[in-house]
Amino acid sequence: MENFSFQNPVKLIMGKGTIASLKDEIPSDKKIMITFGGGSVKKNGVYDQVKAALSGHNTIEFWGIEPNPAIETLRKAIALGKEEKVDFLLAVGGGSVIDGTKLISAGLKYEGDAWDLVLKGASYDCVPLGTVLTLPATGSEMNNGAVISRHETKEKFAFYSKYPVFSILDPEVTYSLPAHQIACGLADTFVHVMEQYLTKTGQSRVMDRWAEGILQTLIEIAPKIRENQQDYTLMSDFMLSATMGLNGFIALGVEQDWATHMIGHELTALHGLTHGETLAMVLPGTMSVLREQKGDKIIQFGERVMGVSSGLRESRINETIKRTEEFFRSLGLRTRLSEAGIGTETIDEIERRFNERHVHFGEDSLVDGATAKKILTQVL
Amino acid sequence: MENFSFQNPVKLIMGKGTIASLKDEIPSDKKIMITFGGGSVKKNGVYDQVKAALSGHNTIEFWGIEPNPAIETLRKAIALGKEEKVDFLLAVGGGSVIDGTKLISAGLKYEGDAWDLVLKGASYDCVPLGTVLTLPATGSEMNNGAVISRHETKEKFAFYSKYPVFSILDPEVTYSLPAHQIACGLADTFVHVMEQYLTKTGQSRVMDRWAEGILQTLIEIAPKIRENQQDYTLMSDFMLSATMGLNGFIALGVEQDWATHMIGHELTALHGLTHGETLAMVLPGTMSVLREQKGDKIIQFGERVMGVSSGLRESRINETIKRTEEFFRSLGLRTRLSEAGIGTETIDEIERRFNERHVHFGEDSLVDGATAKKILTQVL
Repeated sequence: MENFSFQNPVKLIMGKGTIASLKDEIPSDKKIMITFGGGSVKKNGVYDQVKAALSGHNTIEFWGIEPNPAIETLRKAIALGKEEKVDFLLAVGGGSVIDGTKLISAGLKYEGDAWDLVLKGASYDCVPLGTVLTLPATGSEMNNGAVISRHETKEKFAFYSKYPVFSILDPEVTYSLPAHQIACGLADTFVHVMEQYLTKTGQSRVMDRWAEGILQTLIEIAPKIRENQQDYTLMSDFMLSATMGLNGFIALGVEQDWATHMIGHELTALHGLTHGETLAMVLPGTMSVLREQKGDKIIQFGERVMGVSSGLRESRINETIKRTEEFFRSLGLRTRLSEAGIGTETIDEIERRFNERHVHFGEDSLVDGATAKKILTQVL
Repeated sequence: MENFSFQNPVKLIMGKGTIASLKDEIPSDKKIMITFGGGSVKKNGVYDQVKAALSGHNTIEFWGIEPNPAIETLRKAIALGKEEKVDFLLAVGGGSVIDGTKLISAGLKYEGDAWDLVLKGASYDCVPLGTVLTLPATGSEMNNGAVISRHETKEKFAFYSKYPVFSILDPEVTYSLPAHQIACGLADTFVHVMEQYLTKTGQSRVMDRWAEGILQTLIEIAPKIRENQQDYTLMSDFMLSATMGLNGFIALGVEQDWATHMIGHELTALHGLTHGETLAMVLPGTMSVLREQKGDKIIQFGERVMGVSSGLRESRINETIKRTEEFFRSLGLRTRLSEAGIGTETIDEIERRFNERHVHFGEDSLVDGATAKKILTQVL
């Protein structure tokens, strides 16, 4: 076990009808800006529930935070919030709305252009933020991270701010989600857990079991969700898995990887692919190219999660990688770059970007431009 | 899944040499009262590490918080703390020292006798408290609960206060613990998890897997710890299991039991038995007497944790209960009341107390005086 310091102050409020608790969670003297995505919350009843809960509060609305939230949009929200002297933010949406609102929360306290904060990587002087989650996927509702894009330069970077004060998770809001969004949410959660798990064996028995527990849950519920997306227990399991997958609970004292994410971000930045789908494409490549370093953990993962419990070492590793890709395909996701029309030019561009930034991602800092190229070529 | 609201603000600092971080965690303008148990910390180096870390701080010491901390002792600490105008508490010890110090933290802000607060059950106006854990067992370092005894009336009650501000866990401090304390700590952790797990199936896949993950870890590490108590990874797994076993992380949206604890507390109150050992005695009885209500979960526990995967229902349940008792015996603990010289008079007294208080413990409120008598008679 590595030394660690852990603290996660988010108040998690989960269950049927919990959006109504908003009225008690936000002080009534606050000027609230509620941030939204594209408008699905007006169809599924979430918007009405939020407005009803906050009927006694002073609120304004900002609409249009897009998937992979862009600095170009967030600048407008920050300008509006400053003008209206907003002192509380409520993000109502999926990970993109929450991520974008994290940058707004820091931007409201910053004089200059908020892209400075993204380039700096973090800012902890923030307006308090609560969230109502509508799409289980990113875990942003219970962590302090965000990913912000810049369209004009096709860049996408991580940014850290304060944790949300509270997050409200009502599993019933997921009943009407499009199947593709659920598939991407399942894949995103799966890979979040893998980034914290698939490094080395023997670091922490408890953390290994907890990561495996989420992975086992995802594999068990995925086909059932396709059959019935309106089963409360199933959707609760999905929603809780997504939150627990990236709130630090499974990362105590263990190494982390995140190379798959870093490569996936580039695919999104360059081609606009959904985040979850990029991960489904890249992860099998990462496992295959780094099989020397990750071999023991791949074997453990195969045995405990994927049902691969016999055979020679190399064939077990191959079978486990194959079943991982099959899991993503069973969700209805593409797992090959060529299926999205992505070819060697993109691979070369990502190699060039990684080399230019001198990056060395992964638990052993092995993923530079050349390794990223190998990984992507593997899943072409 | 049941609706829930969860928030655990404790800063967990874990690893080798982390006691030194005390100097940064407590503001230098605080008047600190450091609370201790019987003095083992002077032999294992913890006392010296704490004093070195706080050499620039203003501290006083209170010694002698006993196992099953007693109001009679804690009143003295509260009197001293008030006299010295203490505004920060640092508990250095196991669960008893931390539990006792939680009552001190509330008692320092209360005019009357602190036993009033215990009878009230909770008090959240508290002096801030940090902890340095020396014995993994109770989980008190990362929750807001305590159990306080009163010797003159042989009573023992739960009490809730604020969470510790921080808790420091250095696995190396466990290297010199007596074997019996480790055995009781393993049993205590095991039963904490069971109280949150062994109720009904189908509530939450993730919570089930996480509870099972801790139980699997305990079963795996227990024999190894007996062989080598100075293995850092092993003792880290033990320490993290104990903390994760009772910090709320495995209780999200699921029913809880706690009848075994309530009965065990009476055995401690009446006979002074170590808490962990009372649990090892009572749990197999609880499982046996409540086999109708808990049958499905006992089957799941048997299959996933205890390796009982075939046979008819009743024989699987019996075998799982038998293996649970064998696990406690493998730790070197007694599992029968008669082994501790406890007979039917005590059982009758516990029945009388439960009837007098009109209690109905357990997830289905089935454990009253009569059921407690059945449970205890089962393990006589």
